[in-house]
Amino acid sequence: MNQSSSALLTDLYQLTMLQGYLEQRMECTAVFECFVRKLPPRRGFLVAAGLEQALSYLETLRFTPWELDWIAKSGRFSAALVEYLTQFRFTGDVHAMPEGTVFFPDEPILRVTAPLPQAQLVETRLSNLLHFQTLIASKAVRAGLAAPGKELVDFGLRRAHGAEAGLLAARASYLVGFSGTATVQAGALFGIPVYGTVAHSFIQAHEDEMEAFEHFALAQPNHVVLLLDTYDTEAAARKVVALAPRLQKRGISVKGVRLDSGNLADHARRVRRILNDGGLPDVRIVASGNLDEYALQELMAIKAPIDSFAVGAHMTTSSDAPYLDCVYKLQEYAGRACRKRSEGKATWPGCKQVYRHYGADGRMAYDVLTLADEGTDFKSVPDGTALIQPIMREGRRLAPAPALVDVRARVADELARLPEHLRRLQDGPPYQVRVSQALRDLAKACDERH
Amino acid sequence: MNQSSSALLTDLYQLTMLQGYLEQRMECTAVFECFVRKLPPRRGFLVAAGLEQALSYLETLRFTPWELDWIAKSGRFSAALVEYLTQFRFTGDVHAMPEGTVFFPDEPILRVTAPLPQAQLVETRLSNLLHFQTLIASKAVRAGLAAPGKELVDFGLRRAHGAEAGLLAARASYLVGFSGTATVQAGALFGIPVYGTVAHSFIQAHEDEMEAFEHFALAQPNHVVLLLDTYDTEAAARKVVALAPRLQKRGISVKGVRLDSGNLADHARRVRRILNDGGLPDVRIVASGNLDEYALQELMAIKAPIDSFAVGAHMTTSSDAPYLDCVYKLQEYAGRACRKRSEGKATWPGCKQVYRHYGADGRMAYDVLTLADEGTDFKSVPDGTALIQPIMREGRRLAPAPALVDVRARVADELARLPEHLRRLQDGPPYQVRVSQALRDLAKACDERH
Repeated sequence: MNQSSSALLTDLYQLTMLQGYLEQRMECTAVFECFVRKLPPRRGFLVAAGLEQALSYLETLRFTPWELDWIAKSGRFSAALVEYLTQFRFTGDVHAMPEGTVFFPDEPILRVTAPLPQAQLVETRLSNLLHFQTLIASKAVRAGLAAPGKELVDFGLRRAHGAEAGLLAARASYLVGFSGTATVQAGALFGIPVYGTVAHSFIQAHEDEMEAFEHFALAQPNHVVLLLDTYDTEAAARKVVALAPRLQKRGISVKGVRLDSGNLADHARRVRRILNDGGLPDVRIVASGNLDEYALQELMAIKAPIDSFAVGAHMTTSSDAPYLDCVYKLQEYAGRACRKRSEGKATWPGCKQVYRHYGADGRMAYDVLTLADEGTDFKSVPDGTALIQPIMREGRRLAPAPALVDVRARVADELARLPEHLRRLQDGPPYQVRVSQALRDLAKACDERH
Repeated sequence: MNQSSSALLTDLYQLTMLQGYLEQRMECTAVFECFVRKLPPRRGFLVAAGLEQALSYLETLRFTPWELDWIAKSGRFSAALVEYLTQFRFTGDVHAMPEGTVFFPDEPILRVTAPLPQAQLVETRLSNLLHFQTLIASKAVRAGLAAPGKELVDFGLRRAHGAEAGLLAARASYLVGFSGTATVQAGALFGIPVYGTVAHSFIQAHEDEMEAFEHFALAQPNHVVLLLDTYDTEAAARKVVALAPRLQKRGISVKGVRLDSGNLADHARRVRRILNDGGLPDVRIVASGNLDEYALQELMAIKAPIDSFAVGAHMTTSSDAPYLDCVYKLQEYAGRACRKRSEGKATWPGCKQVYRHYGADGRMAYDVLTLADEGTDFKSVPDGTALIQPIMREGRRLAPAPALVDVRARVADELARLPEHLRRLQDGPPYQVRVSQALRDLAKACDERH
């Protein structure tokens, strides 16, 4: 069984609610929206990601005979529900912000418009997919802000939360500007450039460090990046200097060296000097080991001579904020706007749009959250750019998925338009998201109903 | 492609190192061990988990023609490597702590003994699988310590890091004492009990809350748990009281109610009173919403009348410590012990065993980390219990996987033997792990070689 595409990848209550909806013939059109309620600490903005996987999920969602059998045998469900699931296809519409769009709390990144049981059933996996890549894109983008112009590579698979997390973290970090990943399968599936050096075990398996370097160079003559810190970093750098001319005679250039422990700035400075003095000024220094955007910021501030950063667990787990307050909420059913009033969790009702306004400098100035259909009447709206676009109609995509390089270009453009205070890595004044009067009025009307 | 079983789920450097090993005919026996270097903040111990998935991975690891083709076309690898991978089978031995074993830093939870290229190739995915379930088991067990005797259920799929994380978090939390999960597929794949209630959307899709309750009860007559906080929690509790006799006439009992927002203790007390006064003392109260072991501890301390806790994102992401400093390191090659000296990352060399010693009260007293073969000579060892056991020989398991209920029983036994100070949820004095003299001598000898 392919566990990541199973229709059973859902919460039990979706199936129990479906049974209720079907029994009551509640199959009118529902609108659900996916949004983040509030930012985690130290995040000033988020980057939408995961739409591509969410759409694939909706397009291909089917119950296999094995899955249907499990549901039937669970003893909790009616034959009518099993029959419904046997025929299940997602036939709804999807509107969304394109991947790579910068967004803020309460702004929907995706809207599903579909018969209620369909829109309900997809909640869990859709949330799971949008949440994770958005989480990682929003974390990884910070490494780029911390170390502009440096090469960043994802080294995080081993401590990612399972296989899919590793793969999708490679994708999400690439979208926001990473140069590539160490995860081979991410290269094979998504066409992301794949990077690699060598591990301590390779050095240790040899009795002699210099011999290990030479053997690795012979095995990867076009990608020689040698790991220096197995025993003594500077001694190893001197071995690289001694080895380089011998390799050069065989047409092999050392491309880089990697530092993975200790004070990276100090080692980088000493190693840079050894390499330069040894006639190897073009050999790049790669640093790895417990790096996150805060460490990168420090290394940049003290001008550590590091050319490339390999970022692992902190990025693939979004370690300082490992989840987002991301939800998928019913906004409208059968033409009637809905809103829950749960304490601290109240939501804006109805089917919404986000208009972004830019200042004279081209930077983002503020957003306006409106009802999707108030665009023409609402005086201040027409100046803004609508962020939510039609993506899927009646279960089919309106356009092929954009190439990842195009999403990267979008992110670069978004970052160029980010107000200066949002580029910092610490808490600051929040970006302004205004709520239209029509939307406030609707919320009030909803509250008066209950 | 089944992404979670792909042989390409590895770091590029494993393949480049393999090419080096093969070119140098370095195919002697290597010993790698997987261990955690240090505990994250606030953790006094860890619980080993994920062995079952790790073994399945080793047993079934094959390169498909598509994967081999991708490797060949990448232009980085020799025909000899592709040929080697075409034939690849894991034929090594595995020793490990059984799932559910409590362990501490520097103690190997798994040892691979295999020809070097085999033992090297499996590093990334093996680490990824052992790391994640160990992380989650070690987090989830704390909820049980915080709320002994309460029912705990995993509600975390939507904010888990992808599909596999959701599924394996359901498994890992069940192993350490959770009653079940909301994730349907975890029920289908692992036989874990599946739980569910109802979402706000179901209530909101109805014009009337009472009608929503009734419809849900009719749809799930044997599992009626009603959600109270969509509009006004106490008003909803009174509706349950009004509805219950009507349902009772149709043979339907309300089993529980769920609170998902606001001050859970206050709401629980008020709802408990309303239910008791309404003749429903047996209706259970389920609480959910941003719960972790710290919240549970507080709710228990103030005796909130809550019977069941649904725990989500905090548990499935191990939010206060979303990764472990877990590594897989070469300890021996061709009979020669290895140790890296990297600053702050030095490791104990050789093939190791852990002996656990218990006090007169039956509680764990201290562990001794030794060389695997010093058992007979080492004076203080024979009293202890060896934690690392043979699990796989020449690529085949020595015994079928234990049933999950048996692993649960092991964990319960382990927890009963935990020293009191480790049962607290805060930092405390570390548990003592002694290192044998023979192991210290070997480390010194290794250092003198380099």
